[in-house]
Amino acid sequence: MSRVVSRIAVSLDGYAAGANQRREEPLGDGGERLHEWAFTDPVAESDADILARSTENVGAYVMGRNMFAGPGDGAWDPEWRGWWGEDPPYHVPVFVLTHHEHEPLPMQGGTTFHFVTDGIDAALERAWEAAGDRDVHVAGGASTVQQYLAAGRLDELLLHVAPIVLGAGERLLENVGDPKLEPVEVVASPAVTHLRYRVMR
Amino acid sequence: MSRVVSRIAVSLDGYAAGANQRREEPLGDGGERLHEWAFTDPVAESDADILARSTENVGAYVMGRNMFAGPGDGAWDPEWRGWWGEDPPYHVPVFVLTHHEHEPLPMQGGTTFHFVTDGIDAALERAWEAAGDRDVHVAGGASTVQQYLAAGRLDELLLHVAPIVLGAGERLLENVGDPKLEPVEVVASPAVTHLRYRVMR
Repeated sequence: MSRVVSRIAVSLDGYAAGANQRREEPLGDGGERLHEWAFTDPVAESDADILARSTENVGAYVMGRNMFAGPGDGAWDPEWRGWWGEDPPYHVPVFVLTHHEHEPLPMQGGTTFHFVTDGIDAALERAWEAAGDRDVHVAGGASTVQQYLAAGRLDELLLHVAPIVLGAGERLLENVGDPKLEPVEVVASPAVTHLRYRVMR
Repeated sequence: MSRVVSRIAVSLDGYAAGANQRREEPLGDGGERLHEWAFTDPVAESDADILARSTENVGAYVMGRNMFAGPGDGAWDPEWRGWWGEDPPYHVPVFVLTHHEHEPLPMQGGTTFHFVTDGIDAALERAWEAAGDRDVHVAGGASTVQQYLAAGRLDELLLHVAPIVLGAGERLLENVGDPKLEPVEVVASPAVTHLRYRVMR
């Protein structure tokens, strides 16, 4: 059955991005440390395994404007094609929340960016339709995950807890109300701890 | 070898106590939910095991004024003997940080509360001396753990991460700088996730 899932890296003090997020440093000061575990060589087997399991059943993604184009409220450069090069690591349709209309952007490898201007539920509807019986993955950033969690739309939240204290930045679990969470899996490596929660509807 | 360790329950959004801490509700609004896993009947075997292991080698405790007597800066009622009845669950010397002189308070079962007015390092020295080759446990609350972590005095931090979002209260990992943490153990039950970190000096 199709579920709505999200996975996102956070610091031990709960930040999904560091302070001073900007176009040149979209994760903010120190924010790249949240993802170090996924870019070491080699990646720990347990970390690689949970990453593989997290993406194998995803039929569509939803992401926020900032994750696609960097911080800002305005329209972006019409030449902008995302951060990921010509063959982004999604390989399925990606629905980007924005206030500005854009034509769909087909990329190599199966990824097409679609731009949705009528809110999180409209984006989710379109993603569900595209995903068929596979999962819809809310890719981030923090405020997008917050919105779906607060609206009761998530079935699962997988946190990659990096063993760092950022001290400032964008917190993940703010303005989300009091969701009922059930721990369902914990996977640990020396580099990161993965906490998977079922969100009870 | 004697180490300085701390274990403390936090919500998934990083609070060690809820909002509005007060004498009648020392853990603040919803704060008792942080500790539910330890008071269910029966406690999950994995949770009971980590609790037992966390206390078996403790030779002395350090705690903050608020943990002993509730929120407030002033002296407390001279009749006050802590929250734990006549046989507190410590069974070793407990050094309480305070700005006010008090006579030591011997209780049943081996616990004696000592009151230290000259700061965290003085309290730690006295606790070390009392602990011998056993560990010193910084019991809380959040601001006391923060102070020892920020000062580079902790060797180990064990977080009991409750699967709840409190949304407000006293955060644990604020004003602690950028400690170097190494995940060394993860234990999970359906009720709580225990994350143990070595703090590199």
